[in-house]
Amino acid sequence: MSRWEPGAPERLQKAALELFATRGYEQTTATEIAQSVGLTERTFFRYFSDKREVLFHGQDVFVQAFLVGVDTAPPGASPIEIVACALQSAASLFPNERRPHSRTRQSVIEQNPALQERESHKLAGLAATLADALRARGVDELAATLAAESGATVFGIAFTQWLREGEQRSLADLSAHVLRELLTLTAEATAALDIP
Amino acid sequence: MSRWEPGAPERLQKAALELFATRGYEQTTATEIAQSVGLTERTFFRYFSDKREVLFHGQDVFVQAFLVGVDTAPPGASPIEIVACALQSAASLFPNERRPHSRTRQSVIEQNPALQERESHKLAGLAATLADALRARGVDELAATLAAESGATVFGIAFTQWLREGEQRSLADLSAHVLRELLTLTAEATAALDIP
Repeated sequence: MSRWEPGAPERLQKAALELFATRGYEQTTATEIAQSVGLTERTFFRYFSDKREVLFHGQDVFVQAFLVGVDTAPPGASPIEIVACALQSAASLFPNERRPHSRTRQSVIEQNPALQERESHKLAGLAATLADALRARGVDELAATLAAESGATVFGIAFTQWLREGEQRSLADLSAHVLRELLTLTAEATAALDIP
Repeated sequence: MSRWEPGAPERLQKAALELFATRGYEQTTATEIAQSVGLTERTFFRYFSDKREVLFHGQDVFVQAFLVGVDTAPPGASPIEIVACALQSAASLFPNERRPHSRTRQSVIEQNPALQERESHKLAGLAATLADALRARGVDELAATLAAESGATVFGIAFTQWLREGEQRSLADLSAHVLRELLTLTAEATAALDIP
């Protein structure tokens, strides 16, 4: 079956997530994922290099959402303000309807250390790309790296909170809340350490 | 050879790093590492689950250095001040004499995406343990997570800087410098975003 398959990557992703969640990640093969939606293993490997990548497909779109936010920040915005714009833009990728899907994905990742490593690395990659975008706006090296890393941290914490059972707030609200808490915490330390 | 081998893990680590750096990580097997210092593959696997773990051996000691710093922070220290103590304590593990070894290790990791993932995950693990230690001191959930993640970020940036060719400053000085820059950056945003 080498013809074009409309929506094949999305169907494979959905099927993979269901199989990973019900049978377990280790116990599911690429062939089984493909067969469960009437596709061949060959079609699977046309879209994904291995079964792990099914869980991380779409990272470009994810990073792109942050970059769009960087572009919308007004000229003269400080590095952290630019990051605040990036966080708000990224949150739009995760409307509340997507929460059940994201929760299932998270539960699969939590069961497997190699997937957790891949997920940590995804946030590290986000931070690196965000830092490049800040530097491209003229932010200096260290400030760009720190602001970008802090943005990835805030996103990671807000996203974990967003996935919690019973959480109702939007990811945008949670991101803003976590960022505000970071600013409060650092302000406290700045006062105590007497940094001008 | 099943007798006790004094200093075997250290000898294996040193040999592995040399082989990884000269021949390449992929091209080096556990057996070759062991043989290069007159040990058997069996001895190798007594200490390390695979060749990758040779590069990450000692993570307990690494995390422990941060925890010792948390314990030395005075009562009433704010979360970021506690993290500042943890960073100073961790820096003592990396005296300048260790810089060449750390540079070689870094160059091996940079050549292999799976090793980079493992390294990202190591910092994520550090942040999680540090957050637990802050919570144990009574810091609330979100503040503990944020301060711990910020500490891991500051460490990661300072460490990368410390490894750069020509860098002369100590890791302690670099950590303090990066933390100060974070506080400056966030203070700027706090003022601009008008957060009380």
